[in-house]
Amino acid sequence: MSNSKVVDVHTHVYLPRYMDLLRSRAEVPRVILDDLGQDRLVILPGEDKESSTKRGRPIGDEYWSMKRKLEFMDLHGIDVSVISLANPWLDFLPTTQETFEFATALNQDLSTVCTSSDAGGRLFAFGVLPTLSPSASVAEVHRIAQLPHLRGVIMGTIGAGRGLDDPELIPLFQAIADAGLTIFLHPHHGVGNEHFGGYGHSLSLALGFPFETTVAVSRLILSGIFDRIPNLRILLAHSGGTLPFLAGRLDSCVAHDPAVAEKLQHPPTYYLKRLYYDAVIYHDTGLKATVDLVGADRIMFGTDNPFFPPLKGEKHVTRWMSVDKNIEAVKGVPGEEKVWNGIMGENAVRILNLK
Amino acid sequence: MSNSKVVDVHTHVYLPRYMDLLRSRAEVPRVILDDLGQDRLVILPGEDKESSTKRGRPIGDEYWSMKRKLEFMDLHGIDVSVISLANPWLDFLPTTQETFEFATALNQDLSTVCTSSDAGGRLFAFGVLPTLSPSASVAEVHRIAQLPHLRGVIMGTIGAGRGLDDPELIPLFQAIADAGLTIFLHPHHGVGNEHFGGYGHSLSLALGFPFETTVAVSRLILSGIFDRIPNLRILLAHSGGTLPFLAGRLDSCVAHDPAVAEKLQHPPTYYLKRLYYDAVIYHDTGLKATVDLVGADRIMFGTDNPFFPPLKGEKHVTRWMSVDKNIEAVKGVPGEEKVWNGIMGENAVRILNLK
Repeated sequence: MSNSKVVDVHTHVYLPRYMDLLRSRAEVPRVILDDLGQDRLVILPGEDKESSTKRGRPIGDEYWSMKRKLEFMDLHGIDVSVISLANPWLDFLPTTQETFEFATALNQDLSTVCTSSDAGGRLFAFGVLPTLSPSASVAEVHRIAQLPHLRGVIMGTIGAGRGLDDPELIPLFQAIADAGLTIFLHPHHGVGNEHFGGYGHSLSLALGFPFETTVAVSRLILSGIFDRIPNLRILLAHSGGTLPFLAGRLDSCVAHDPAVAEKLQHPPTYYLKRLYYDAVIYHDTGLKATVDLVGADRIMFGTDNPFFPPLKGEKHVTRWMSVDKNIEAVKGVPGEEKVWNGIMGENAVRILNLK
Repeated sequence: MSNSKVVDVHTHVYLPRYMDLLRSRAEVPRVILDDLGQDRLVILPGEDKESSTKRGRPIGDEYWSMKRKLEFMDLHGIDVSVISLANPWLDFLPTTQETFEFATALNQDLSTVCTSSDAGGRLFAFGVLPTLSPSASVAEVHRIAQLPHLRGVIMGTIGAGRGLDDPELIPLFQAIADAGLTIFLHPHHGVGNEHFGGYGHSLSLALGFPFETTVAVSRLILSGIFDRIPNLRILLAHSGGTLPFLAGRLDSCVAHDPAVAEKLQHPPTYYLKRLYYDAVIYHDTGLKATVDLVGADRIMFGTDNPFFPPLKGEKHVTRWMSVDKNIEAVKGVPGEEKVWNGIMGENAVRILNLK
């Protein structure tokens, strides 16, 4: 893959301005200090309620330092990163002028970071929206479209509080499509959390996250949004959750429920094939299924950095197993170097216009 | 596939004795009569609460008549069926002697049907357990093991009420393994139901069912049951829900949570590769992923009959689209006729000893 660019489309940051907010809060999401003066991140729903996780996970400057991000990129041979705020974004903030201005400031921060001389043109970003207010989000989309290194918005699944199939969001989706921006759809709350038994948060992350993406996209499809806005461009985290695997079952269940099917111009799989998928899936079985359903040219490499750091060794100098698993998965896709180069970066350059 | 047997391992029946129970009940699960004297099935959790589904779905004798089952098999070229009671089995019945005797009677009914001259040796069965009572279930397993055409038990995910990773179930799993029987693990309750929005039950079936299987099997794995009972043989409905697709993510999340990982001898995928999967998935993308992860020789064709009948035409003489989609999926698996023949029936003959 030597002559071709490697691009990471799924790589997060808690900007310093956002860290300040997390440090100031008394409720989840928040950052607390442990006895050793180490920052600990507590962000997942209910994480503070469980004894094993209530003190969160230790985090360091890899969560907010752009120097660390660039080191991480160098260490893993990543040429370009499309950074995004990590969950839960602004989904927990009230619809106030202060929140709207905070979103604007964060997007300006992203722009400043990406266009800085330190970044050397290697950073692009997905912006953030005050999603609970669709009208303020529309205004923010117009601002984001003017920022030279921003290529879209990262979005969770709650929308304005009632899910992404809420008719109130249609003007927002239209504005995003009209601006030529991409939505990076990412889970946070998890689906099925009450069923995961006593295994810490491992199953919330392993299963609840991909379930959440699967549900949100299925509801978007059934709402008819893609018939209404065919050029709405969405990149799905974690290779679409479980959608490539469940596509056939989704089509079949919808076909056997005429009241649902007759509202759509096509079976669900038709729309799934028009979406984009990252390659954050850690195994070639799932990635090959995604390629099989939607084609390799709609799939883009990602790392989920700075989450899933190395279990042993110094995280700033040791290669991350979580990254290597995703690279191995890409190399496990049948095809020629052209296919791998596409997934590893060239698709992102083309689709997100990272010139 | 002409010279090789076609076997349907996922095909349900509500035995007349069970229909009598459903007809006698005032709560879900139940069968009600509509104004035209047509039986209507209301079985899914909350189905009676929603206006579009509270009157259930119309059902006919394809749900209880073995004559109809054999007609369905002839129509679709199925040589052998391994029938099982449809959900929710006995999971809603109290742990009383009456329930235990009901289970025994149903299993005797299955045996009588399968060994009848009408069946001509073409029917085998998975029996049913009074699962809420593990000790009564163990006793029933011993009885089932003596019935000539029974090859295992169908089981939901609630166990004795606390999920399948409940330590109280270990003697039951040990008894099933010792008897050389197979568990056919099947969803009923759905996971994520509260997130599916206003699309009737289409998403409960399309997503909630496979999520439920995924969660139950993940919890079984993390409980260490397969380290304790390596020869526990489980056949997963709907190609394992979503597990082949999520295997890499599950491995990665467990590896990054040492408190969970250190209780297991192997990564989760190791255990996933030792399970069996049906091919009820309606699309070759998902089926190929299952083959990729576990190998084609652990996968067995199924139809989910009598659910998902034809939308148009007379259901007793029209080929079922739901069946044809699953046959197409098998034919979409790369390989030779030997691979297809294996999935279509020879694997089931070998694994379930259908001689």
